[in-house]
Amino acid sequence: MPSWPPAIAEKRFAHARIARLATVTKAGRPHIVPVCFALHDGVVYTAVDAKPKATSALARLENVRATGRASLIVDHYEEDWTRLWWVRVEGPAEVLESTRAIDALAAKYEQYRDARPAGPVIAIAPERWRSWIASEP
Amino acid sequence: MPSWPPAIAEKRFAHARIARLATVTKAGRPHIVPVCFALHDGVVYTAVDAKPKATSALARLENVRATGRASLIVDHYEEDWTRLWWVRVEGPAEVLESTRAIDALAAKYEQYRDARPAGPVIAIAPERWRSWIASEP
Repeated sequence: MPSWPPAIAEKRFAHARIARLATVTKAGRPHIVPVCFALHDGVVYTAVDAKPKATSALARLENVRATGRASLIVDHYEEDWTRLWWVRVEGPAEVLESTRAIDALAAKYEQYRDARPAGPVIAIAPERWRSWIASEP
Repeated sequence: MPSWPPAIAEKRFAHARIARLATVTKAGRPHIVPVCFALHDGVVYTAVDAKPKATSALARLENVRATGRASLIVDHYEEDWTRLWWVRVEGPAEVLESTRAIDALAAKYEQYRDARPAGPVIAIAPERWRSWIASEP
């Protein structure tokens, strides 16, 4: 399958404003949620909003704590299907409190500078980068 | 958490041009891929391109065959984060050959009318609809 050269894949990924995070529940079921994220020193960070009781935020944290893995995808859609592409990372993940991660998120998103996330972050160490492009550019 | 009324959630979901499909590998790892899809008679269908050796297409089929589950999310992103929303379905899934499913996909996507997918489809029977909106419209 055609794919981006690694440096371009990483750049396209890093610049995307939104990604989708897939995790697996303790019971082995798929869980998916859109997330904002930042790539910093080769690690992907995504924060949980400062609403500790939000079920959906809890689910992703629980899943990462239970399984220690996550996958994140960035993609581009338009009606001309020869221009589609995606970039995906997969690897070990953990839940942690990290000022540095929040700093990286705030550096990327003005919205986080206005309202700094108070919750923990999920850190994903990409073990594998995969990309796909519908046709050579 | 604020959410759409079910009828609106289903309509927003059905009209989206792209969704992301999460499945789980035999080894219990998360797998995610962007997909085109059609909602037809309450079942979600997504087709595999007619390239039988494409690793990525095979992975999602293998995962569905192995685990019998899938989740699909549709979301809306813009820089005004008060306008974010998503709609997600999760449920039992199977791999099948279905002219009716391809018909539903071709009815939604002109691109599929021009090049009808030849491969199998994944059919997901939503057991649970979930939606989230950042703020009441």
